[in-house]
Amino acid sequence: MDIKEKIGKRLRELRTAKGLSQEKFSFECGLDRTYIASIEQGKRNVSIQNIEKIAKACGMSVLEFFNSNLFQ
Amino acid sequence: MDIKEKIGKRLRELRTAKGLSQEKFSFECGLDRTYIASIEQGKRNVSIQNIEKIAKACGMSVLEFFNSNLFQ
Repeated sequence: MDIKEKIGKRLRELRTAKGLSQEKFSFECGLDRTYIASIEQGKRNVSIQNIEKIAKACGMSVLEFFNSNLFQ
Repeated sequence: MDIKEKIGKRLRELRTAKGLSQEKFSFECGLDRTYIASIEQGKRNVSIQNIEKIAKACGMSVLEFFNSNLFQ
């Protein structure tokens, strides 16, 4: 799994754990729903500013976002 | 400090801890020296693929790269 796929997997895991649709989650992030969908598909080389937005929408820090076996 | 500045601070901290010049470090990463310099100046919205390259050049995982008070 490459890093883009790991980011996608982590995002989907966190979003579904919150019980949010992609649409609702994208609204929380201030990012487009189609962009969130393509991140989850492992297609995006996400920037640190967008990772920060995603982490905030998950109610966590950037460190907590990466605190997963995926990034060890 | 915004997230770009935090990334710059973390990179400089790790690079200097390894006793490497920007030139040597950029060679290890496979990134341009001027790009490394601008990251360290907090000017770049670095992508996750480049963060992974930087972490590898530091001999650490992506999680370890973010394992700093800066990202808590």
